[in-house]
Amino acid sequence: MNSPATWFREDFTHTGSSFGLRIVRKLDEVQSPFQKIEIYETTDWGNLMVIDGATMVTTRDNFFYHEMMAHAPLFTHPDPRDVVIIGGGDCGTLREVLKHPGVRSAVQCDIDEQVTRMSEKYFPELCESNADPRATVMFDDGIAFMANAKPESIDVIVVDSTDPVGPAEGLFNRAFYENCRKALRPDGLLVQQSESPLALMHLIVDMRAAMRAAGFVDFAILPFPQPCYPTGWWSCLIASKQPRDLASFRKADAAAKAFATKYYTAGIHQGALATPPFVAQALAD
Amino acid sequence: MNSPATWFREDFTHTGSSFGLRIVRKLDEVQSPFQKIEIYETTDWGNLMVIDGATMVTTRDNFFYHEMMAHAPLFTHPDPRDVVIIGGGDCGTLREVLKHPGVRSAVQCDIDEQVTRMSEKYFPELCESNADPRATVMFDDGIAFMANAKPESIDVIVVDSTDPVGPAEGLFNRAFYENCRKALRPDGLLVQQSESPLALMHLIVDMRAAMRAAGFVDFAILPFPQPCYPTGWWSCLIASKQPRDLASFRKADAAAKAFATKYYTAGIHQGALATPPFVAQALAD
Repeated sequence: MNSPATWFREDFTHTGSSFGLRIVRKLDEVQSPFQKIEIYETTDWGNLMVIDGATMVTTRDNFFYHEMMAHAPLFTHPDPRDVVIIGGGDCGTLREVLKHPGVRSAVQCDIDEQVTRMSEKYFPELCESNADPRATVMFDDGIAFMANAKPESIDVIVVDSTDPVGPAEGLFNRAFYENCRKALRPDGLLVQQSESPLALMHLIVDMRAAMRAAGFVDFAILPFPQPCYPTGWWSCLIASKQPRDLASFRKADAAAKAFATKYYTAGIHQGALATPPFVAQALAD
Repeated sequence: MNSPATWFREDFTHTGSSFGLRIVRKLDEVQSPFQKIEIYETTDWGNLMVIDGATMVTTRDNFFYHEMMAHAPLFTHPDPRDVVIIGGGDCGTLREVLKHPGVRSAVQCDIDEQVTRMSEKYFPELCESNADPRATVMFDDGIAFMANAKPESIDVIVVDSTDPVGPAEGLFNRAFYENCRKALRPDGLLVQQSESPLALMHLIVDMRAAMRAAGFVDFAILPFPQPCYPTGWWSCLIASKQPRDLASFRKADAAAKAFATKYYTAGIHQGALATPPFVAQALAD
């Protein structure tokens, strides 16, 4: 680069921290009916998708998030066949879910078609399983989708949404979770991205309280690195419809998985279940 | 804050990423013979120490680093009694090392007395064990210290330095590592902060190659969250003087430890030993 470096910066007012990536140029921008989507080319992180000013995905580091959001719950469930992804419009979680040979249907329901169109163009590797015959990529309101879902028809629901403000706000409350619970089969699991365990623990506490009020019984919080999100340390929260030990998972299957991952392994999954004392303390009932 | 927010920002040119913290005001600044040290009060992260423009320590998130740098090697060593810390002038690693009742001496050798003076003033909690009778806090050149160390006199050497540029450059090469190896007892361990496994893997590969050239035999890389460092994901590299399985550690002792930690536990240690596939691939010989 001969011109002076330019930086995309996101100042997280709620955590008092900031993250930035050095960019080469803006590649695209679209205002959908729901949000503004921007795509940048970065110097070191591949492409970057920004929604309403918030960093969503980079080519380089999205694998942490997508692998943990998909493989952690799917190897925790005894036999996941029917999976629903609410949000997830970049299609990266869908790709990971479809790596499981036992999955026979995976429905992705994101409200904003433009996110997927942008992902197809600028993150084609994330969309490489969209044509899988088991996949349904639809664009609709995830809240309504879950309200209308057939009872006891889903094994795992993955809520892969933006933060609890704007279009995604309704994906973090008791009414939504009650509909998720109804739609799950008895051994069903709900997993949701649950923000930073260092800086946003109050959101995790609130999410768990709302899930519990909706009837979910057991919970596990799994932290993982996610450099482009606030504090670089993120998490997913797994909730079970019925009582069960979420620290137990199909470890032998995870260790013998026939597909490649960059981050997730049985050992990483086990390690993520080791809750740091300061997190355990914040989550103590 | 009634005035517009100000941000301390560090642009990491070598990773193409940036980190920032929202600050209330600058509390102090000193130009030592070695480096410029600045202290800021932040809105959400307590105090912040910056050395030559690089984020070093915040009140809020330093525990990840200090706990992993101390407890991971000390619980890997069978019976650590004599520990040397090269660098570590903020005294946070020293405090953690001294939590081990079996340690009978811990020498901290940092070249820059001003770092410790600033830490005493703005991070007093990190310095609370400096008066421990087992502790020696000295200010000298760590390279010369190791060159002059008595052979086979140390159990664990912790290299808690800044990045391999400036004053710390000489702490990342074969000559230094050879002196470390000589000074270690036969079952001795060297541990060094080893940068980001996502963005700075080449540094880890280089460090390991130099350690190996100096005669170190086995290696383990342990990643951990460290929000204020590039990518928010950091690591330490443990090296053994003699052949041994560094994936084995005193797990029962770690699980039964009589002191409190915020991040480190036996489970976290075990989890950190689960190397993600993309890291293992980069480290494959």
